[in-house]
Amino acid sequence: MSDGPTFRDELVAAGVLVPTACDGIYGRSSVYEDIVAGLEGLVNATAASEESASYQFPPVMPRSVLEQSGYLSSFPDMIGSVSIFRGDNADHKRLIEVAQSGGEWTSFLEAADVSLCPAVCHPLYPTLRGTLPEGGRRYDVSGWCFRREPSLDPARMQSFRQHDLVYVGDAERARQHRDRWLQLGADILGSLGLVVETVVANDPFFGRVGRILAENQRSETLKYEIVTPINSEENPTAIASANCHLDHFGEPFGIVTAAGEVAHSCCFGFGLDRITLALLRAHGLSPADWPAAARDRLWP
Amino acid sequence: MSDGPTFRDELVAAGVLVPTACDGIYGRSSVYEDIVAGLEGLVNATAASEESASYQFPPVMPRSVLEQSGYLSSFPDMIGSVSIFRGDNADHKRLIEVAQSGGEWTSFLEAADVSLCPAVCHPLYPTLRGTLPEGGRRYDVSGWCFRREPSLDPARMQSFRQHDLVYVGDAERARQHRDRWLQLGADILGSLGLVVETVVANDPFFGRVGRILAENQRSETLKYEIVTPINSEENPTAIASANCHLDHFGEPFGIVTAAGEVAHSCCFGFGLDRITLALLRAHGLSPADWPAAARDRLWP
Repeated sequence: MSDGPTFRDELVAAGVLVPTACDGIYGRSSVYEDIVAGLEGLVNATAASEESASYQFPPVMPRSVLEQSGYLSSFPDMIGSVSIFRGDNADHKRLIEVAQSGGEWTSFLEAADVSLCPAVCHPLYPTLRGTLPEGGRRYDVSGWCFRREPSLDPARMQSFRQHDLVYVGDAERARQHRDRWLQLGADILGSLGLVVETVVANDPFFGRVGRILAENQRSETLKYEIVTPINSEENPTAIASANCHLDHFGEPFGIVTAAGEVAHSCCFGFGLDRITLALLRAHGLSPADWPAAARDRLWP
Repeated sequence: MSDGPTFRDELVAAGVLVPTACDGIYGRSSVYEDIVAGLEGLVNATAASEESASYQFPPVMPRSVLEQSGYLSSFPDMIGSVSIFRGDNADHKRLIEVAQSGGEWTSFLEAADVSLCPAVCHPLYPTLRGTLPEGGRRYDVSGWCFRREPSLDPARMQSFRQHDLVYVGDAERARQHRDRWLQLGADILGSLGLVVETVVANDPFFGRVGRILAENQRSETLKYEIVTPINSEENPTAIASANCHLDHFGEPFGIVTAAGEVAHSCCFGFGLDRITLALLRAHGLSPADWPAAARDRLWP
């Protein structure tokens, strides 16, 4: 182990990330945001070559989506559910007394019908209920995600952005879309000067049953990740992933192909914050000094 | 009352907003997002004329900020606190059984140290603890906010974006910043072809005590709003606001001027989603057909 400053220390010292009282929740400087904007532009330009409907989803979504998508079942330890206050003046008075004495005032709250969004394509599926056009449909969705993983690793944020390229339709086209974007994504990331590798991967399913789900996911090669070193050469970080969902979303959300079958779906997700961090790690904290090839791609 | 489609109906029918199971939580189309991006560019260009530090804050923040900022005390009915699951395999099994039988599974959750961000300048203040440089400092902050106000009025979203121009320093410069941006903001909005009016306003403080706070805020003209018709000519909607906080944030967050006094602060906030809706209302749902003057400003 080195005794020098960590990458996080360097990012904070340079003012690129502003830490808060919660690990994994940071303000981002304009240097950082200009990189994110450049990435969004590059992904949008690539996505523009295919017909897709583009949406920004907000950071919160109906809580029912957590249940229907299976996320609550598979990743309960990652969720964020939103609680609210619906009391009257007297309740409020007691809440404030508890808060001022340092007590747990959240006992006065109740669960709302809202949760944080764990993956930016999840709020899309309930809006697709019904029959898809012939050939299925492509979507291009962006937004903030939350996963409850407090960490000092800057690449493991609780609140981060994804840009997902989604296909919903028949099984064969779904896998083709996944494989094509896996290649397109690796090309884009490589063109920015990142040393990337594509590897078979699994999601961090919860608990004992989760271990079996993870093994199945790997043996069926349903998930690939594009990884690159951020905090360590030995344990590179996933900065993008390509996922075959089979009918995991089509079934609960009632999405049907033109041929009348339960729709399959897949998505390729760019981890915008992790790619930004990988670029800062690879090229340094001063984008003005980055290789011209990367600069020209991000800020044409 | 008219029997025709509402503005919300029109936005949804045109696919500009995608409704979800929760009122006030919408997906946004690329038509909508291009307007937001144009607004951000216009505000950034104006802000670039003054030296300010620019940050994007994530949609969640430390829950302690809700307490220290006084938001919990003044607007308890607006907050969103985040709950998480920290149980083991057995707890998870019971949670899923309850969820599958349609029960209230959130009883298995506990409050995290995280809440949704109610106003984008709030996470800034705790990062400023200490002594400011001579003359104070300007900040330019953007991000997603949450307020628990489910509504069918598209201009009253639960999840929306703000872009705030903040000054922290001495009382006189704070008021000057507020007044200057109030004029700049009205000029920007007017230049987009919106018919705007600047009015004295108050925040929706909670309960009986809140009524007094609101009256004080108005009599001291601490808050102005820039309003324009969105859903009604008689009750125009606030699309931007200018606020003198006095030492409301300087005091609890320990922010001190170079002269050793508790810092005052103020901010001017653009409501990016409401301005976008106001433009769609004023100029129609097809930005390609908007007046050239507005188009040239948004997409130079």
